[in-house]
Amino acid sequence: MDIGGSKTEAVALDDTGAIVASTRLPSAQGPAGVLRTAEQVVEDLARRTDRGVDEFVSVGVGIPGQVDRDRGEVRGAYNLGIDLLPLRERLRERTGLPVGIENDVTAAAVGAAHLMGLSGTVAYLNLGTGLAAGYVVDGRPLRGAHGVAGEIGHLPVDPLARPCPCGQLGCLETVASGSALRSSWPAGGAHPGHTLLAAVDSGDEEARAAFDHLVRGAAASVRLLVLALDPDTVVIGGGLRLLGPRLFDGLRATLDRWSTDSPFLARLELSPRVQVLPEDSSAAAVGAALAVAGDDPAGAFGASSGVGRSAKRPACRA
Amino acid sequence: MDIGGSKTEAVALDDTGAIVASTRLPSAQGPAGVLRTAEQVVEDLARRTDRGVDEFVSVGVGIPGQVDRDRGEVRGAYNLGIDLLPLRERLRERTGLPVGIENDVTAAAVGAAHLMGLSGTVAYLNLGTGLAAGYVVDGRPLRGAHGVAGEIGHLPVDPLARPCPCGQLGCLETVASGSALRSSWPAGGAHPGHTLLAAVDSGDEEARAAFDHLVRGAAASVRLLVLALDPDTVVIGGGLRLLGPRLFDGLRATLDRWSTDSPFLARLELSPRVQVLPEDSSAAAVGAALAVAGDDPAGAFGASSGVGRSAKRPACRA
Ligand SMILES: [Zn+2]
Ligand SMILES: [Zn+2]
Repeated sequence: MDIGGSKTEAVALDDTGAIVASTRLPSAQGPAGVLRTAEQVVEDLARRTDRGVDEFVSVGVGIPGQVDRDRGEVRGAYNLGIDLLPLRERLRERTGLPVGIENDVTAAAVGAAHLMGLSGTVAYLNLGTGLAAGYVVDGRPLRGAHGVAGEIGHLPVDPLARPCPCGQLGCLETVASGSALRSSWPAGGAHPGHTLLAAVDSGDEEARAAFDHLVRGAAASVRLLVLALDPDTVVIGGGLRLLGPRLFDGLRATLDRWSTDSPFLARLELSPRVQVLPEDSSAAAVGAALAVAGDDPAGAFGASSGVGRSAKRPACRA
Repeated sequence: MDIGGSKTEAVALDDTGAIVASTRLPSAQGPAGVLRTAEQVVEDLARRTDRGVDEFVSVGVGIPGQVDRDRGEVRGAYNLGIDLLPLRERLRERTGLPVGIENDVTAAAVGAAHLMGLSGTVAYLNLGTGLAAGYVVDGRPLRGAHGVAGEIGHLPVDPLARPCPCGQLGCLETVASGSALRSSWPAGGAHPGHTLLAAVDSGDEEARAAFDHLVRGAAASVRLLVLALDPDTVVIGGGLRLLGPRLFDGLRATLDRWSTDSPFLARLELSPRVQVLPEDSSAAAVGAALAVAGDDPAGAFGASSGVGRSAKRPACRA
């Protein structure tokens, strides 16, 4: 499942990694609310697949915040009202199932690589309320030492140097994110992505500047990911995908323009590496299920091969 | 061996990964010169270990430029006068030994992790004439899709926006590298690192500004590596290490100052992750030998365990 600030989405996968059922509930807030919602989606998937909860093999949870997989704890998932929650243990008690937890962006990276059939090194760039990346290398998530790999949103890069909630100035997240858009185009209200392009087309100069800034920041994020990690593919995901082809085409055109000025960048072939995650792909929910299945050293989780067919794991994963 | 712009350094390792002999020769220029020097250091190591060249198991070569390990080719190693060289095949013909090639910074990362006994994720930051990073994850090099992972020197970050040879403006390499120092403090001549601190102490304002800029750029590079990859350890290597404790202390103090202003950065514990590669450590030569040994899927290469004791590999690696 993927526990987001507003909704919790969940899928049941069979042994081949195919989706056999899915569900979605509004996310209740706070530790008790999050646990209740999580338990409800598992029960709902059991009903939809006509089996008992105890017939699932494992539960994988993607959640925002700092995820400590060793301790099974989530910290600082503020949009869910969570300061600290020992999610793994609490959900195991409620469901009786083995539970694995994963940062939601890393889970989405795993799910995107699986659903899009991408091999090698995949960087997933989440353009949502915030900006962050997740990585998959040869079918396995690359999480870093403390589960904060991919926090590129808080790299100061912008000469405009707008203040960021993290305490720094000019972070990438102040340029290319939903929250950046709300600051740079206050007329757009709380959900500026829905009306931004219409405003641009109607000649709103502030909207145009905000959109151009966003496109440049997204392109800078792709350049950063390629130079830092050299992924085969950079997958664009997150809520700002609703801006559609004009965002993606603008992003690729910006990369191409930079490459015209720099033979070095031209050799890196930036824009051909960019792909867009299909809408409604449930990547984070699928990735959370796959990642916990992959934690089993004998598991056959892989980006292109799907989850395994080992005799040890005959049933469904929620 | 590590083929650098001015010298080629080589070590012979035994089955445990311990150095049993070492040598160093000036690097001859151009494809023919590079091959001749490479052959000479192998012969020299054979003499020093009292055996024939054919008794070595394999030869690993670290070299600057874009290294295509699939084709065994090096491109754009301009400080060696190499545009394109099929190094693996040519050196195999000359020595009769299996040859593996590796980007020099990635090789240094592998060697540093081995020599310093570092496990988990290690980022190696090379502060040399240029600026680049190499990575080791759980004992294996992380090279990326096209062998350019870690090219962080060409990320534009500096509002001063000095032109970079890559065609962009304000790249990290224009801030924190030997070439940056030559531009920002021309009075220092071709090797400004040797006289910079004395000039700072004598009250040279331009030298002080150049040093401060360098320290900030090095700190920004560490922050970038931590946010992008979340390594357990960031190892500082490269020629600018000759600036000594004042560089490293300044770097750590800068990270700590940034963390005072940003609770987000404070949680990441940046400065405790920084370690300095010991001088004269031959990290790149050792890492090149280990990395080619590790290419054998049955090999037991590991950052902390050293190279293996498998019966298949009884002799020395050069
Ligand atoms: Zn920030
Ligand atoms: Zn550059």
